[in-house]
Amino acid sequence: VRWGEANRVAGVERRAGGKGVNVARLLHQLGEDTLVTGFCGGPTGEAVHAELESVGLPWELVPIAGETRRTTTVFAGSGTDATGFWEPGPTVAPEEWQRFGATFASLVPRADAVVLSGSLPAGVPPDAYASLARAAAETGVSAILDTSGEPLRLGLAGQPAIVKPNADELAEAAAHAAPAASPTAAGAGIFAVAQRLRAAGAEAVVVSLGDEGLCAVTAERSWRARPPEAVAGNPTGAGDAVVAALAAGRRRPWPERLADAVALSAASVHAPVAGSFDAAAYQRYRELVQVD
Amino acid sequence: VRWGEANRVAGVERRAGGKGVNVARLLHQLGEDTLVTGFCGGPTGEAVHAELESVGLPWELVPIAGETRRTTTVFAGSGTDATGFWEPGPTVAPEEWQRFGATFASLVPRADAVVLSGSLPAGVPPDAYASLARAAAETGVSAILDTSGEPLRLGLAGQPAIVKPNADELAEAAAHAAPAASPTAAGAGIFAVAQRLRAAGAEAVVVSLGDEGLCAVTAERSWRARPPEAVAGNPTGAGDAVVAALAAGRRRPWPERLADAVALSAASVHAPVAGSFDAAAYQRYRELVQVD
Repeated sequence: VRWGEANRVAGVERRAGGKGVNVARLLHQLGEDTLVTGFCGGPTGEAVHAELESVGLPWELVPIAGETRRTTTVFAGSGTDATGFWEPGPTVAPEEWQRFGATFASLVPRADAVVLSGSLPAGVPPDAYASLARAAAETGVSAILDTSGEPLRLGLAGQPAIVKPNADELAEAAAHAAPAASPTAAGAGIFAVAQRLRAAGAEAVVVSLGDEGLCAVTAERSWRARPPEAVAGNPTGAGDAVVAALAAGRRRPWPERLADAVALSAASVHAPVAGSFDAAAYQRYRELVQVD
Repeated sequence: VRWGEANRVAGVERRAGGKGVNVARLLHQLGEDTLVTGFCGGPTGEAVHAELESVGLPWELVPIAGETRRTTTVFAGSGTDATGFWEPGPTVAPEEWQRFGATFASLVPRADAVVLSGSLPAGVPPDAYASLARAAAETGVSAILDTSGEPLRLGLAGQPAIVKPNADELAEAAAHAAPAASPTAAGAGIFAVAQRLRAAGAEAVVVSLGDEGLCAVTAERSWRARPPEAVAGNPTGAGDAVVAALAAGRRRPWPERLADAVALSAASVHAPVAGSFDAAAYQRYRELVQVD
């Protein structure tokens, strides 16, 4: 890339994205029934509708006056030094957020699990995930929350079945949840900090640690799940794969559920784009993940 | 911008662009009736339709199966070091190109002048501008051609009323038109080289020289037009302003026409985006451009 100049782009890929859509793609590939909901607007929103239909992902998206944002990623040279440009995205109007609440309430009773993923758009109250998780819990449906910052911190009050921070997100949320030293690496400290998020409302806390696997704290005990090997590839979407596996494994015992999450996450690193995984690698890793 | 990382974008502006649209915007601001034609497809194409309508620019765009390309420009810091990413754009199918030919033929008789601007999309024959310019000439309509490389070189055979290369585009076209030394700066050499483009078919050649103004070679004589001052600002679209002024001044004597072209070009540098100009600066510059 020549900075400050015009660069001719060799090829362009467009893809409906966002963490929620990535999780739905993964669940679809795992054979699960999914439904995508959220906000969608403008010509980019129509492109999202069209693509979800073409890949067979049902959706019920609330239309908004603003335009769905794009995230532009520039790959140059070897393709490993990707530079992302994240648009701020549209502001959601109060009546649009109300409409979403009604849509969500109508969908939850049909669900076995709800995944609440990603940052919140402007205009949506910062405790949005708390009210959505609470609505799910009141209907007896598990909510898995994957967000960061204030939406995560405030979301804990909605008593989600699982929150899935990474190490940085855990440290930030815990620093606000109770004043204490923050963890910076995998280790015993993470379990203590994760317990603080349970005390703040989460039923279980699963901390994704990149190529070091997962730490999990549940009502009964704590777990450590490690991948069988270091995986080289595209780490974007590895956290979405953890969430998808946790949702798909909702009826399985925790050790299996966590092994699947580590395996799917590693298998997603093998795939070229977020929201997909290498099926052969997934099956191979499932047998090899070590859970203690 | 942090290269190789995710960058949060503070603000996003979307704008229907391309040289042809920019020229039409400028002519519209000058009070001329215009009609935009070309190819348009996909959700981005629909966004173009909507914006042309909202700014009052009539259009008759031929729909294509591919999606209209986007050009993404990243502004960081002071905003002067803009980095552009130019998508390759869709490939036009043979029947889509045929349909455009019919559309163009139906529109030309209603026009006083036709502006042929920009690179050619993939799938369109490299001599496309030659056949369009010829169709205009046969109807007695002036064609102004603003392109580069092979489409410019081959376009000369269509006997356009004016071609408007910049110095680099002139040198490249002339190097192929006849073997001789190429010009690299404003000077007497440019006139000789421009004459070679006249010999190859163009009725007149107007060479844009950035903040040094214009050189022009017509059937009667040669002209040199200089701006009254160096202008700081956004030079994107300054060449489109030259073309727009040449089209708007089609009934005026060459010295006035060229003075207007230099004035509008300089006034467009004052405006923040391509396809617009500072009206007060335009009026002021018109009186001050020196034409020899």
